[in-house]
Order: sequence, then C-alpha cells, then structure tokens
Amino acid sequence: MKRSPLAPARFPDLPVIEGARFATVAAGVRYKDRPDVMLAELAEGTTIAGVFTRSATRAAPVLDCEAKIDGTGTGRAAILVNSGNANAFTGAAGEASVNAVCSGVAETLGIDPDRVFTSSTGVIGEPLPHDKVLSKLSELADGLAPNGIEMAARAIMTTDTFAKGAMAEVEIAGKPVRIAGIAKGSGMIAPDMATMLVYIFTDAMIGQAQLQTLLRTLTDQTFNCITVDSDTSTSDTLLCAATGASGVDVTDSAGFTKALHDVMLDLAQQVVRDGEGASKFIEVQVGGAASDDEARQVGLAIANSPLVKTAIAGEDPNWGRIVMAIGKSGARADRDLITIHFGDTLVAEKGWVAPSYSEEAGASYMKNDEIVIAVDLGLAGGMATVWTCDLTHDYISINADYRS
Amino acid sequence: MKRSPLAPARFPDLPVIEGARFATVAAGVRYKDRPDVMLAELAEGTTIAGVFTRSATRAAPVLDCEAKIDGTGTGRAAILVNSGNANAFTGAAGEASVNAVCSGVAETLGIDPDRVFTSSTGVIGEPLPHDKVLSKLSELADGLAPNGIEMAARAIMTTDTFAKGAMAEVEIAGKPVRIAGIAKGSGMIAPDMATMLVYIFTDAMIGQAQLQTLLRTLTDQTFNCITVDSDTSTSDTLLCAATGASGVDVTDSAGFTKALHDVMLDLAQQVVRDGEGASKFIEVQVGGAASDDEARQVGLAIANSPLVKTAIAGEDPNWGRIVMAIGKSGARADRDLITIHFGDTLVAEKGWVAPSYSEEAGASYMKNDEIVIAVDLGLAGGMATVWTCDLTHDYISINADYRS
Repeated sequence: MKRSPLAPARFPDLPVIEGARFATVAAGVRYKDRPDVMLAELAEGTTIAGVFTRSATRAAPVLDCEAKIDGTGTGRAAILVNSGNANAFTGAAGEASVNAVCSGVAETLGIDPDRVFTSSTGVIGEPLPHDKVLSKLSELADGLAPNGIEMAARAIMTTDTFAKGAMAEVEIAGKPVRIAGIAKGSGMIAPDMATMLVYIFTDAMIGQAQLQTLLRTLTDQTFNCITVDSDTSTSDTLLCAATGASGVDVTDSAGFTKALHDVMLDLAQQVVRDGEGASKFIEVQVGGAASDDEARQVGLAIANSPLVKTAIAGEDPNWGRIVMAIGKSGARADRDLITIHFGDTLVAEKGWVAPSYSEEAGASYMKNDEIVIAVDLGLAGGMATVWTCDLTHDYISINADYRS
Repeated sequence: MKRSPLAPARFPDLPVIEGARFATVAAGVRYKDRPDVMLAELAEGTTIAGVFTRSATRAAPVLDCEAKIDGTGTGRAAILVNSGNANAFTGAAGEASVNAVCSGVAETLGIDPDRVFTSSTGVIGEPLPHDKVLSKLSELADGLAPNGIEMAARAIMTTDTFAKGAMAEVEIAGKPVRIAGIAKGSGMIAPDMATMLVYIFTDAMIGQAQLQTLLRTLTDQTFNCITVDSDTSTSDTLLCAATGASGVDVTDSAGFTKALHDVMLDLAQQVVRDGEGASKFIEVQVGGAASDDEARQVGLAIANSPLVKTAIAGEDPNWGRIVMAIGKSGARADRDLITIHFGDTLVAEKGWVAPSYSEEAGASYMKNDEIVIAVDLGLAGGMATVWTCDLTHDYISINADYRS
C-alpha cells in the first residue's frame, strides 16, 4: 500500500515513559513476516482509563476491557494488541480467546488477569487463532524494553499506510511530564465512540477516576470530531495509562489537559490523514449555530456527505453540495443567513453566491492538499470543528477488495 | 451516460389520464438539443397533493409549492418542471424566477397563478435563466396532448440514465381507475423527504385532504425507504394530481391505495436502479426489531454504509460489515440473537458465522445483480424493508466531475 500523500514526514521521536515497556512479535495471526502483536507492560501504581465504541455489536475484547476499567486496580498491568483479526462477532469462542490471552499474559508476567487489557483489529467474524499469540508470550516478555513504542505502533497497523505517533512534554510545578501516544485506523472511522485503536502513555500521576473523566471529555473534542466514512467499528478502543513515575500530580492541571488534548488531536488528525484513499485533508469549521451540538451535527453532515467528499476529490468548488449537507443535517438553519468560506475566500452569503466570488478562485483553492471549509449559520454562538478526508477511487478499490 | 445495467427493459406503456395533458420543449436552460422543460395541464376539478424535502435549505420552487398545497383549489392547474438548474440557494432572485414562471404559465393557460406548481432540478446556486423558459410557454401550450407523458419523463432527467415511469389500472365499483407516474433521480437520494422529483396523475376522484394523507403515508413506505448515497436534495418534490375524470370516488378505497402504493414503490425502486454508478440492486429486509422505526434505522444503516456498499460492489460476501452497520445504527440489538441471510443462504446466527455457511456459497450469491440481505434481530416484531444500490468507481467518477 502506497503511503498516504497526507502523511507526516516521519514518525515522531517519542519520549521514554518511565514505568512503561514495550515489545512486539510476528505471530502470524494473519499477516506474514511482519510484527502483528504488541505488548505493553505497565509498572505498579499505573492508573488506566478507557473509552470504547458504543456499537451494539462490540467485539469480545472491547466488552472485556470495559468490564475491567473500574478504577480500583493499581497493580502492574499489561496491554496486548493483535492486528489481522478483530475477534468480533465470534460468539462464545471470542470470549474464550480473550480469556485465554489474558490468562496467558497474566501468567507470563506474573500479574492479575483483571489488569490485562487486550484489543484485536482486522477481519470480523473469523475465530482468533489465539494459540499463535500464546506461543509468543515468552518471547514478548523477554523483549520488553522502554523504547519499543514505535515498533508497537507498526505492529497494530491494518490498512494503515503509516504508523501514527504523537508526543508532548510539559513542565508542571517545575518538573517535566511526558506523554507518548500511538494509534491505528484508516477505514471504518466515524464518531460516536473512541474511534479506532489508540494507546497513550504518560508518567503523570493522576487518579483513575480523574483520568477517566478527562479522557471522555477530550475524546469528544478530538476523536469524536473525525470521520473517514461514517462507519463505526465494533472494536474502537482508547486506553490511557498513567504510570505516575514522574512524581508529578496532574489532577486539575490545565497544562496537562492541554498537552493530552494536543496529543489526542494530533493522533486523531493522523488517522484522517491516513483515511482510506484520502487525497485531501479537510477541516470543517462551523460557527453561528444554535448550539455546539448542532454545529457538530452540521459539521458531520458536511464531512460525511459522499457528494461533498467526491466533489473535493475532483477539486470541484461545489459549494451547492455544502448547502445541501447543511440542509439535511437536521440542525436549525436559515438559508439566507448562511455564510460559506473556502479558506479565506468568501463563497456564499445572504442565500446566494457572494458577488466577489469567482469560480476560478474556488477552483484554484481546491487544488490544495488541505482544505478548510468554514460555515457560519448566523443564528447564535454554537461552534464545532470536524476533520475528514475526501472520497476517491482508491477508497472503492481498497474496500471492494480488502476483507475487513 | 451508459444506461444502468439494472434498468427495466423499456419504458412502460402509460395509460392516458383523462384531464391531464403534457408538452415538452428544448429551452436550453443548460442542456443543448434535448427537451428540458415539461408542462402538465390539469382540468377543472383536479385535486393536488404534495410531499416535499424536509431540508432546511429548500429550494425556491419547493417553498412556493408548499405554500400552494392548501387543499382549497380545484380550478384548472399546471405543473412546470425544468431540468439543468435547481434554482436552489439563489437568494431573492430564486423567488423572483419562480414568480415569473408561475405568472407566465398562468397567463398563457388562463389559470390562477396559485394553481401553478413548479420544480427545478440540476445545478445548485446558479440563477435560473427563466427567460429561456418564458420564451417557450406558447410553444408548450400549443403542444399539450394527452399522450405526452413519456416525453415529460425524459425532459426532467439530469444524471438519470433512463426515464422512469410506472402505471396501474384498477377496477373500483365496476369502473376502471388509472394511475400514471413519472420520476427522475439518481444521485443525492436519501430518505427523510419525498425524494427526488415525482409526478403522479390519476383520473380517480378524491378530496385534496384525503389524497394528501394517503400520499404522506405511502411515501413513508416507498420513497422514504430508498437511499442511494444518504444525501438529501434541496429540491425533492412529489406531486400527485387526481383529475376525477373517471367519475370513481376512491376515498378509503383499499384497491386504489394498493395501486397507488405499487406505482410509488415501482418508481422508487427505479430511482435506486438508476443510482449513480449502481451495478447491484440491494433489498435489505429487517425483522425482529424492537419496533418498525428501529427496523428502518437498521435497514438504513446497512444501506448507507460505504463499507457494506463497496463490499457488494466487489462481490465480497462480507457479512462482518453488516454486523458493524447493525451495531452503529443506534437501534437495540443483541449480538448473539442476530440472524443474517444472503438470499436463502443462512450466513450468521447466534453471534457467529453459521456452521452450514460456506464462503463459496456467499461469494457465488454475490455475483447476482439483485441482492437480498435479510437481518433478523430476534428481539420483537418490528419490520422494515429498504432498497439501495452498491457504491462503485462510477459513483466517484460521476460525482467528482459533474457539477450538481
């Protein structure tokens, strides 16, 4: 698979997070000759928060993780993720596989099975060959090292064309706190969940309940504001582990909240930049809505519209389709109060094309790799920003062939 | 544009509807050398009902029609439709164009302007060159004839690859009643409205209020159960004119209701069969839902899922994506109670692939032009059927180029 033209230049240098160690292995779950399992081991004292897909057909590992995110544990912990098989819609066998992997990891590392979290991503409906994973656990445990996170990011990829990582270092009370995150995802990406697989590690010290609340709030501003194809995975998982090794209590720290937000938004945008077949990165800014919720509703209606997305793929400044998407969103709107900009170019206002707008200016703007569509509904102060990509021939090629 | 492979063999022989006359003309609104305006004239005593898009950015002709559908008029009436320009998001100029056309038609035919209904379909955001229409009104009036309905169906096409017509003749109280309908539409098709442009004519005798209620009910079972691309037009209009010329009162007639339903469903399915780029016609049957509404919600989630639609385009029996779509629909579902059939083939049950299912059977079924996906949620008695088409490279080609 060709690397997305919207990919960052390279994988960032992620800081070592004290208390977290990583290992990967090629277990041959589905892919041959590439790492497809990652293991993260987390030191005593780590708090873990999680946000999961709201799908009614959640995969077995998601149900297992949800049951374990309860705020009480602080013992040593582990996260194991395999790619190639989602262990989703696999009936009772799916739960048996999760239990087998969790027990195996717990035994190998000498930790409580309730502190083992797993995710699986890939094909739906085929049994997870968990024996392949179990047979590699000793090798994984032996390979654990503080600097293995980039390989971990590679091991969890499926249709991704690049590995996704983001980091932040912030000084709080005179001491440094570090955050390192990885993510995978490029299709079956839509809001209303944690979206795809994301693992964030920090040496900050924070209680589980506080971390959980923070994660939920920031998810609504980041991962829940992106969409590739409006389809919601059965496996979406976001886990955040705080080892506390920095000794810095970040409860209610605005600096930490901002740093975590930035890491999450960076990862979320990287997922869009790797959207299946994407050739354009699109930011939809909506203002003047009756409420923030309605602004997000309008933003998502635009971002999910196949007609808007194909127009952008064709570099067609087809603002009429944006008006259409606003109209169908269900949010309050008054045709004659809507203002639309492409970047800095005023396109439409007062219910019609702006007198200053030229088709040439619009067409020229559409040649950019990054497109900003700004809509002002002119009603009140509701605002939201949503990120998406265009809909191209490559999306069809990828999804009419790949069995996910 | 190549005729859709899913098109009916030919345009049906529509019956003459006494009291209705048709004419078409090439006015050059946008297309060259093809009819692009149709005029229907309706005799004294005709009742007219209408259902319209619920878009918040409705086009000027839609707003005008809505204001006129009030149940009081029974004088002579007219319907004028142009293709090539939607007169949508055209500000105050849009209303002026509608008024100019309505006045012109009223004057030419000698009828009340409040009994003139117009629709426009095509490009959004460009002023309607209504002078081109006005200059052809005499020619249109001169050409009015009882048998011009097939040409009318052709005049209203935009990206359609075939003209759409449907008919019914039903005997009520020993006397024949006829229904003839035409429609256009192939992209920007999604429920929550009347969907695209549809005009139905009958010689039945029925009060406007009864006809309006009937039309709304039947729309929910037909046009609101189809989707091509989840995008809702700003111009969708369904008008039904009952001339009463048969002398048969069809108020509360089950036979007439069934006949009208069948004509509407036929037209709705023809729109799907002409879905932009469609290569497969897909029927999604949902049963066992908590309610009929939730069944429809699940059906539409499946029918609108880009991943389901691309899998079908690729003839991939990817039932995992159907599970995904059920999960994201928002309707109640229990993973382990879901049963999925492709045609007669049992695919999945009890939360997993059925033991009897073979990938070969699924792959072979997917080679059909017409695919039936049947989902039983196993919860209660809620049912719905939804129709859609697949998502192909041609959809991208059509929409990344065509300016709609």
